[in-house]
Amino acid sequence: MKARVFVTLKPGVLDPQGKAIGHALEGLGFAGVGDVRAGKLIELELADGTSDEAIDQMCRQLLANTVIENYRVEKL
Amino acid sequence: MKARVFVTLKPGVLDPQGKAIGHALEGLGFAGVGDVRAGKLIELELADGTSDEAIDQMCRQLLANTVIENYRVEKL
Repeated sequence: MKARVFVTLKPGVLDPQGKAIGHALEGLGFAGVGDVRAGKLIELELADGTSDEAIDQMCRQLLANTVIENYRVEKL
Repeated sequence: MKARVFVTLKPGVLDPQGKAIGHALEGLGFAGVGDVRAGKLIELELADGTSDEAIDQMCRQLLANTVIENYRVEKL
């Protein structure tokens, strides 16, 4: 089975990478670009039957820094 | 309006970051972890009525390197 983990910075956490992307888009002439936030997408190939709890543990222990990041898991 | 851009490496392109994540998960004792691919997730706040073509141009010009990366746009 496959799982996708989306890791995003929590609201209020400064995101210099997102800011840089936003400024670069403006510099390229794209109008109307507001806030930009950069996150991570991790695609995992897992053994069939891997429990939701196991995936959650992976996120908490390694994939996301839960102090500053939120994560969302999507199983395929 | 909001848009999410998912940027992933094309199949066949080496992904050392994904490999490192996979090895780290194994090292933490998670069994059955196969291929891991790392990608990017970019959340954009855009002016209402921004056309699909404009978003596509942003991806092609800045957000994704289309030589080695695929991208997918999700409008919210």
